[in-house]
Parts: sequence; structure tokens; C-alpha cells
Amino acid sequence: MTDPDFDLDTYAARWSESIHAALSTYTPPADAPPAVLHEAIRYSLFAGGKRLRPLLCVAGAEAVGGTGEIVLPTAAALEMIHTFSLIHDDLPALDNDDLRRGIPTLHRAFPEAIAILAGDALHTLAFAVIATHQTGSADAVLRVIRLLADACGERGMVGGQVDDILHERQPIDAKTLRSIHERKTGALLSASLLSGAVLSGATPAQEAALTRCGEQIGIAFQIVDDILDVTGDDATLGKPAGSDEKLDKATYPKLFGLDESRRLAHQAAENAENALTGFGASADPLRAFARFVVQRNT
Amino acid sequence: MTDPDFDLDTYAARWSESIHAALSTYTPPADAPPAVLHEAIRYSLFAGGKRLRPLLCVAGAEAVGGTGEIVLPTAAALEMIHTFSLIHDDLPALDNDDLRRGIPTLHRAFPEAIAILAGDALHTLAFAVIATHQTGSADAVLRVIRLLADACGERGMVGGQVDDILHERQPIDAKTLRSIHERKTGALLSASLLSGAVLSGATPAQEAALTRCGEQIGIAFQIVDDILDVTGDDATLGKPAGSDEKLDKATYPKLFGLDESRRLAHQAAENAENALTGFGASADPLRAFARFVVQRNT
Repeated sequence: MTDPDFDLDTYAARWSESIHAALSTYTPPADAPPAVLHEAIRYSLFAGGKRLRPLLCVAGAEAVGGTGEIVLPTAAALEMIHTFSLIHDDLPALDNDDLRRGIPTLHRAFPEAIAILAGDALHTLAFAVIATHQTGSADAVLRVIRLLADACGERGMVGGQVDDILHERQPIDAKTLRSIHERKTGALLSASLLSGAVLSGATPAQEAALTRCGEQIGIAFQIVDDILDVTGDDATLGKPAGSDEKLDKATYPKLFGLDESRRLAHQAAENAENALTGFGASADPLRAFARFVVQRNT
Repeated sequence: MTDPDFDLDTYAARWSESIHAALSTYTPPADAPPAVLHEAIRYSLFAGGKRLRPLLCVAGAEAVGGTGEIVLPTAAALEMIHTFSLIHDDLPALDNDDLRRGIPTLHRAFPEAIAILAGDALHTLAFAVIATHQTGSADAVLRVIRLLADACGERGMVGGQVDDILHERQPIDAKTLRSIHERKTGALLSASLLSGAVLSGATPAQEAALTRCGEQIGIAFQIVDDILDVTGDDATLGKPAGSDEKLDKATYPKLFGLDESRRLAHQAAENAENALTGFGASADPLRAFARFVVQRNT
């Protein structure tokens, strides 16, 4: 019995407190020496992100009958990886962004050297948190570390960032664009969902279905990101709209136009929901996620 | 029966081939897409480093009766972490160095964005390689991941880099200087030695002795690094001598003078050797290391 009206807002609000608490527990206090580094880490980590990756991790655990509380260390680590990638992506040598989540980017609020090193520290901290605090069999924890490392490394997120930069001001085809998105954004979203499930004893069939679901949520998410950069306003987005166009980035609206981009996003969200047909009500949060990513305006 | 004339050069030459092969095996080929990223990674990784951390990992394994071949994935990962830290340390916003190992630093040879992302990719790859390729019990592999993450994170290497920057042009006391060095350089050297031993079934007493040995080798190494920056020449060092003075870094020669710095380095090397009294000939490579770090001129 699945619930088509599952209230994702309430679910997210309920979990955001636990996720915040986990992030705070596993991050050194702001006054730990060197204080400027820890202030910088907390500035970025607690700037009010949507916590999408931790929520997907929790929802992945619940989908296979696990409990979200158990996977909170990994959920926190996923947000640390995401935050590290945003900090480095915003740097002058990369996207050179001034605003993120409605406040100055880290290298505008702190010296650039501290921003680079705070990103590095969060990157390491993510692996430290999983290896130190994630309960479960050592084999399962190692598997999650592999999932995370594969998703954020040169074949995943970082490789996607590089290709994203290389394709600024370049003609691009649909296959390449999709490959960039799959690596830059999709891989970590997908790994978030899967890691929660792996730690909760998912069967191979469940893993396959959730991998498919995560990939499609990732595609929908990134297409909507591209659309919002065209149609959104700075205040809602918390960052300057139109920054993709400014950098002449490869985007779905640029390649397909807005209408076809919207259709593709809805198609991906539908694929994500369809991947969950073998699951019962425990996957309702994930189904609601799939609907949310195409409805969001921020 | 220990050998006071153990030939470290032969030992290092014998192992450098295996370490090189492991690094090459675990690093994607230069033509893997995105090629520019993988070219950049290989540019830095194969620029002719001394491979001190991999060698310490191998020597740590052998000291407790293990075999170096077994720990090569971790040895390679340690060099990846070290290389990532050099790439980011050299960036314009940090030390702004033009030369490293006798060739242009990565951000001088490639776009700065690629250098930042190549560092990030190596950082992730290190954890991926251990989690994917390191054999042994899952518990031991997880322990090594924790050792590595603790050594290179905000309480270790990155924290030390931040304090190093913060103390440019600042008065400093011996305790603070030592704390910076312990974290910036010592922590990873020590973790290198210990990780090889942990993977080879070291007893708690052996671990304690090797931790002490690694710390003292780290101290000796860093003091000599500071001395060579004053007394060495560009060609031998492969990087500009005098760069510490240029940035007005906190160093041992600045605080203690050259003679007292040399005495402190020799004392630390002696402490490192003394930590190994419980070991037989299997620790001869480590003993030779302790002597080498104070005799090296590069």
C-alpha cells in the first residue's frame, strides 16, 4: 500500500534535526584549533543546505526495512562530501561564484587558502566519519566507503566537474551532457541512496532497483537545476541565477530548450518511481523525493 | 642481529619499482576521459618523488614480519595523499610555488582549476584504492582508513597546513612550531609506518613502538627540510631554496639557528632508532631510514 500523498516536507523536517545533530557531532567545534579552519568548515556546512543526500541515505535505509538513525554517520559524511565539492567548485579558478545558499561563498568570507583547505578537510572528514562512527559489519562499511569514493572521484563527481569546465563555450551533444550530469551530480545522489540501503542489508535485487532509482533522481535533479538557473531568481535560489549562461555552460535548456527539458525531467522522475514498483510503503519517502525534485523551485 | 650498515639505497631501489607499478596500476591511464585530468594526475604522481611514505609503509610491514608486497595498495594510497597535499600547497592562494621536483608545479603546467581538481581526485583515489584493493581483514583495512583519515584531516596534515599559513610573519614558540610540524608532516609519515604494520598483524606493543619511531622520524625529517631550505640549492632540491624565508615561515633554523636545528634533528633520529630496540633485523630498513632522514641533501 503506497501513499501517493506522502508528506515529504514533514519527513524532511523530522529528519533534518537528526541530520544537523549528526553533522555537528562529527564536526570539530568552531573553537577547536586551528579555529579559523573549523569556523570555515562550519560556515559552509551549516549554511542551510537542503540535506538532500543525507535524506536520500535515510530514505534508502528505510526503503529496505532499515532505520534512518543507524545510517546517520554516513548521511553526515555525504553532506560533507557535497559541501567540499561546492566550496571547491565556487573557487575563483573554477566557477568564481560570490554567493551560495544566500550568503558569500567560503572564499569570499574567508581567505582563499582557508577555503581550499576547509574543502580538503571536509573531504577527509567524510571518510573519517564513516570509518570511525558507522556501525554495521566491517564489510558493509568498507563497501560504503568504496561507493562513496567511486561516486566522488575522477570517474564520478570530480571527473564530471572537469568535463563541465572543459565544455564551457563548446558545442555539446546530448550523450556528453548526460554523462557530465551523471558524474557531476547523479553519482553522489545515487550513492547516497544506495549506501543507506547497503548498510540496512539490501538484497542484490533491491540494490539494483535503488541504483536505477538513484540514477533517475539524479538526472531529474540536474535537469531541474539547469532549468532553475534560467527561470529562477537570485533570492529564491540563494545564488545568482543565470550563472550557467554567464559561463556558457553546457545545460539541458541550452541543448533542448525549456519545454523539452521539463519533459525530460518529468520522464526521469517517473522512471525513478517506476524503479520502486517492487517496494511497499517503506519506499514512499523515495517516491515523494522523485516527485519533489521536479517540483522544487530552489 | 641488526646491521648498522644496512644499505637503504639498494632497498629503496628494489622497492621503488614495485611502488611505481602499484601507483600506475591503481591510477587510471592518462588517456582515460577526461584526459586532461588524468594527464595532470600522472604529471604530479610520476614527477620523481622519493616515495618515502610508501617505503615507510613497506618497512613497517617488514618490521613486524609481514611482506611489503601485501601492503602495496596502501603504500600507493599514501603517495597519492602526499601528492594531493603538495599540489594544493603549491597553489597561488597558498605557497604560490612555481617549481616542484625540478619541474613546473601542476598549476603552472595545467590550468589552475585542473590542478585543484586533480588534487581532489587523488585525495579520493587514495581512499578508493585502500577500500578496493587492500587485502586483509575488513577490520584491519578499516583501521588503516581511519589512520590515514586522521593523519591527513583537520587534526593532522590539513590542520598543520592551516597553522603553517597562519604563522607566516608571526612570532612563534618551540611548542607551536613542533605541533605544526607534527601535524603537517609527521602525522602522515607516522601513519605510513603504522599502516604497514597494522596490515601485517602488529601487536599493541609493536604498534606503540612504531608510532614513537614514526613520530621521531617525522620530526627529524621536517627539521632537515627546514635546514635544506636554508642551505640547499635549487638544482639539488628541485624547488627554489629559500622559499620559507621568502614567505617568512616558522622554521627550526629561524627559531633555533642552524647548529641547534641539526642537533635536534640528530636527537630525533636517535630517538627513532631507540624506539626499535625490541625489534630484530627485520627493522633494519627502518633504522637506516632514521639515519637517512638526517643525512639526506634533497
